[in-house]
Amino acid sequence: MKGNADKKFKAGIIGGAGYTGGETIRLLLNHPDVELAFVHSRSNAGNPLYAVHADLLGETSLTFTGEIQEDVNVIFLCLGHGESRKFLEATPIPDHISVIDLSQDFRLGESVNGREFVYGLPELQREAIRKAKNIANPGCFATGIQLGLLPLAKAGLLNEVHTTGITGSTGAGQSLQSTSHFTWRANNVSTYKVLTHQHLKEIRRTLQALQPAYSGALNFVPVRGDYPRGIWITSYLECALTLEEANKLFSDYYEGHPFTHVSQKQIDLKQIVNTNKCLIQLEKTDGKLVIHSIEDNLLKGASGQAVQNMNLILGLDETAGLKLKSIVF
Amino acid sequence: MKGNADKKFKAGIIGGAGYTGGETIRLLLNHPDVELAFVHSRSNAGNPLYAVHADLLGETSLTFTGEIQEDVNVIFLCLGHGESRKFLEATPIPDHISVIDLSQDFRLGESVNGREFVYGLPELQREAIRKAKNIANPGCFATGIQLGLLPLAKAGLLNEVHTTGITGSTGAGQSLQSTSHFTWRANNVSTYKVLTHQHLKEIRRTLQALQPAYSGALNFVPVRGDYPRGIWITSYLECALTLEEANKLFSDYYEGHPFTHVSQKQIDLKQIVNTNKCLIQLEKTDGKLVIHSIEDNLLKGASGQAVQNMNLILGLDETAGLKLKSIVF
Amino acid sequence: MKGNADKKFKAGIIGGAGYTGGETIRLLLNHPDVELAFVHSRSNAGNPLYAVHADLLGETSLTFTGEIQEDVNVIFLCLGHGESRKFLEATPIPDHISVIDLSQDFRLGESVNGREFVYGLPELQREAIRKAKNIANPGCFATGIQLGLLPLAKAGLLNEVHTTGITGSTGAGQSLQSTSHFTWRANNVSTYKVLTHQHLKEIRRTLQALQPAYSGALNFVPVRGDYPRGIWITSYLECALTLEEANKLFSDYYEGHPFTHVSQKQIDLKQIVNTNKCLIQLEKTDGKLVIHSIEDNLLKGASGQAVQNMNLILGLDETAGLKLKSIVF
Amino acid sequence: MKGNADKKFKAGIIGGAGYTGGETIRLLLNHPDVELAFVHSRSNAGNPLYAVHADLLGETSLTFTGEIQEDVNVIFLCLGHGESRKFLEATPIPDHISVIDLSQDFRLGESVNGREFVYGLPELQREAIRKAKNIANPGCFATGIQLGLLPLAKAGLLNEVHTTGITGSTGAGQSLQSTSHFTWRANNVSTYKVLTHQHLKEIRRTLQALQPAYSGALNFVPVRGDYPRGIWITSYLECALTLEEANKLFSDYYEGHPFTHVSQKQIDLKQIVNTNKCLIQLEKTDGKLVIHSIEDNLLKGASGQAVQNMNLILGLDETAGLKLKSIVF
Repeated sequence: MKGNADKKFKAGIIGGAGYTGGETIRLLLNHPDVELAFVHSRSNAGNPLYAVHADLLGETSLTFTGEIQEDVNVIFLCLGHGESRKFLEATPIPDHISVIDLSQDFRLGESVNGREFVYGLPELQREAIRKAKNIANPGCFATGIQLGLLPLAKAGLLNEVHTTGITGSTGAGQSLQSTSHFTWRANNVSTYKVLTHQHLKEIRRTLQALQPAYSGALNFVPVRGDYPRGIWITSYLECALTLEEANKLFSDYYEGHPFTHVSQKQIDLKQIVNTNKCLIQLEKTDGKLVIHSIEDNLLKGASGQAVQNMNLILGLDETAGLKLKSIVF
Repeated sequence: MKGNADKKFKAGIIGGAGYTGGETIRLLLNHPDVELAFVHSRSNAGNPLYAVHADLLGETSLTFTGEIQEDVNVIFLCLGHGESRKFLEATPIPDHISVIDLSQDFRLGESVNGREFVYGLPELQREAIRKAKNIANPGCFATGIQLGLLPLAKAGLLNEVHTTGITGSTGAGQSLQSTSHFTWRANNVSTYKVLTHQHLKEIRRTLQALQPAYSGALNFVPVRGDYPRGIWITSYLECALTLEEANKLFSDYYEGHPFTHVSQKQIDLKQIVNTNKCLIQLEKTDGKLVIHSIEDNLLKGASGQAVQNMNLILGLDETAGLKLKSIVF
Repeated sequence: MKGNADKKFKAGIIGGAGYTGGETIRLLLNHPDVELAFVHSRSNAGNPLYAVHADLLGETSLTFTGEIQEDVNVIFLCLGHGESRKFLEATPIPDHISVIDLSQDFRLGESVNGREFVYGLPELQREAIRKAKNIANPGCFATGIQLGLLPLAKAGLLNEVHTTGITGSTGAGQSLQSTSHFTWRANNVSTYKVLTHQHLKEIRRTLQALQPAYSGALNFVPVRGDYPRGIWITSYLECALTLEEANKLFSDYYEGHPFTHVSQKQIDLKQIVNTNKCLIQLEKTDGKLVIHSIEDNLLKGASGQAVQNMNLILGLDETAGLKLKSIVF
Repeated sequence: MKGNADKKFKAGIIGGAGYTGGETIRLLLNHPDVELAFVHSRSNAGNPLYAVHADLLGETSLTFTGEIQEDVNVIFLCLGHGESRKFLEATPIPDHISVIDLSQDFRLGESVNGREFVYGLPELQREAIRKAKNIANPGCFATGIQLGLLPLAKAGLLNEVHTTGITGSTGAGQSLQSTSHFTWRANNVSTYKVLTHQHLKEIRRTLQALQPAYSGALNFVPVRGDYPRGIWITSYLECALTLEEANKLFSDYYEGHPFTHVSQKQIDLKQIVNTNKCLIQLEKTDGKLVIHSIEDNLLKGASGQAVQNMNLILGLDETAGLKLKSIVF
């Protein structure tokens, strides 16, 4: 099933004023097979999209709406955590519409009004996603950490994992708070939720699905980085594989996955900023395997992966609308 | 004449290892109607593109070549100033191949071996570009300043102009120098070539073509900004128009130009970073008209405009391959 | 009159929770001749200073107070614009206490309850400051622009002036607003109050005091920079002096002023960040004199100059407590 | 023994053109009890200091020299790794002069020409430093990591340690290299020498001196941060202490040490940038103790600690010349 100019699929967005809503808009405006039918926002209804997303001036004359069109194939929920469940409880969405939820409300197997959600990590379960109706889109840190561990879990090689993750400021959303004040954050470093980050639950759920006996600790230190976009993950663990064997294990696992690649050279974050890619690099020292994995938190970590999931459930090319130019310079 | 998947146009790049070469590669890899046939680089011949442009890992297996293919429609020269002329003097390029030069070597009407160049600013002379064989692509500062002044020049309203331009570090290229050292440039500001910048020549040439009697001073203060990408221009001059009249003058002038738009709201640089757009905003105070104009120095100020020019000379949609997602967050 | 360890002068601060309050605290904690007697803050009364200014942990056990001690020699008002006047109208301050006000409330000759204020720009009128009781501390942009123009005004050489000023984010204070959100401001540029900035009034007042016939326009483009601290000013105007003559004019004027120096080399902003200095560099092109002047907006542009003024009115060494290490790297 | 204005101690610097040389100059220029007698640099001999360190304009008229004065009390070696040994082998330094070496050449107990060096970490062995003749100044990462672990080692509580360290770009010195290019490093993250950093040797040496049976792994992930100054360290390990007990252990250990403090609130890097302080914050989760420690890599991690060591060996107040204003805003 392939869309064409005469008969594109249609998509709507709920909560289009935030960061993930904005990125989803940008992706759908340029998508070859899907038309952005509406962007819902109560507070902005009637305003042009570019009144909120100023970069869209000259790209679309679409306005925010307070109504929900029902002649769409898919709806993206770009709402805060807890808000997606409330929205779906309060708003009747016809059964024929797929829901792709970017919050954390349905990532652990929760359902609402009989709607079941498949965890939308294509590198974990692309075929299940292709057959899914609704998608719980993974968290940003969760995506990067899991992509660094999936091949090991599948091979039954996981044990205690030590992970540092550094995130850009967009990960904290657009609300004004002291930790997002420019004067404070510029040239600064800090940590939060050390060893207790909420994404650990969905990560563990995935890893145990692949390696049921896995019960090792996942030690995760989240760091606030001094830049807007991108997540850097470094994980390490005891591992008997040689570097060559590990590289082969990872390359084999990601064979055929268009956005996740293993680099033989040292990677740096800007290689993937503003793209839907995840790059992975391995090192081996003294019995420990080190895995670096990087992604754009708003794309592969949120809106880009949501569109990738949409492509899969609509039967489109997995990369449609996602061949994005990086901002490496 | 419209390309299609079966019969794409072909393009080659000379000097593909630098910033503008890299951006031209990124644009052509995703261009719907043009195939990137070869990327020439003597020093990198034989290496995959991603050995130099690490973000291209997973996107292409193309390698740099030391040979020049002759079965292409267009060649981009992404060489340093002075190098384009040397290259064209030393290298026979068949007449059927269009040359788009990103250096400053042919912007003032110079020719080489009988090859004439049209100044490639579509908002100035789109029809002349459509008929052109070879293009001298404008300078980055020159593009932004001119787009802020073209409507006034056409209306014969220019007089002494006062301009400040702030540029990202990519404007200085990838060579290692003290003014591009991170420790020095981070959180820093400095100026260079104050009132003497070399782009003033091509700007004046354009403005006098539109307003032949124009002889006022162009006072330009170039500033090194503390960020990688984008150019901010603020110009002001004496002007009798009301703000409303000025907005109409500019909007009318840019009507139908897909990348240049007049904003009624205050603009900020990141609205256009990683796009081929130029946004313009006007203010009026005490008899003076203030014009802000912004662009990405590597795209509308270099490689993006080069591809826009290619689209025009090949008879393609002017925006083909240039619908780029901004990095506004 | 020189303070010593046994008999230091005493100072208090009103409004110690903001940026200028914090910098004044930091300067006074290390001042050799002045003791910080109290820091007043209604909302923070009872809390240790480091609860608000976290960098002071380990440096002082002082707490904020809701009371005003009267056994001090000088009080700094680090309040918002308009708040200083309200405070002095509502709060009886004994006559023996000098008031140094960092707001703009008294810079144009205003008085309150019989209290007169001398404009505290030492390079303009150090002797008047030495004899003053109360000081209206200049604005941050106003200080940098004036220091670039004082020698010309004194020589009667001013005419229409064109000025660009780029400021760090601390200039906007610590309140949370969209233009101080990290995600927005990082890698961004924007302008505000173009040609209409409120500091133009105090600048013009000073310049006309030195050159009474001066009536030329002061065109000032304020720019929001992508860094926390420091102001860069570039001004230019028609001038018949040679570069050599101009350098001599400026060097002669600032002879004996310990914080303002003329550089023969190109300057850059970080030379003065975290110091009380102003550096000036001149260029001459085509009949125009270009003046670059740089300062730390929170020090020479606010709290540092306030302490410099305190030193002068208390008869101390002008540089006492102000020999600060820059953060040039 | 306390210096005074009439009879200050004298210090010289070898290798004054680099970052640590520059910071040592800045500290000594304002030191109350020590005079900067000479700054040696072969390549810059005869030039004023501000020709290299432009921020010193107006602060000193001292020039670099190619000669070494012998009437000094102490010499700082601010040379590259390996260069200090070569210098001391080739250059006769009279026995009465103390040598404080900032390189890694003598940190593991090495000596040269009979000169023995004491490892200069005052929080480890202040009394030994007071009696020392020569000092091997600790590495920047090594200082921050050790200050986070010393109390645990002394209490015999160390086992396998997991550490992430993020450093500003000044840690890489002023040479031009691709990883210090502004365009590359801005908004970027990368790692280097993962689990193999050379500072692990001096760290282990210290820890085993306090806890001889310690043989656990020290897993250290060094990260290149997107800012010029400061080191953030997060370490964690299994620990049976409650948070309260751990806080008491650390506070007791650092009691009386003027630069190292335990914070009860979350810390962030800019609290200590441009100061000689180290702040430590503890967290406890699920049997693991998390230790955050922060310092300015050029001050407590290099030149500031070198001056602190000088103060100790000269019998001065440990904090003389080191009461520095932070750049927290």
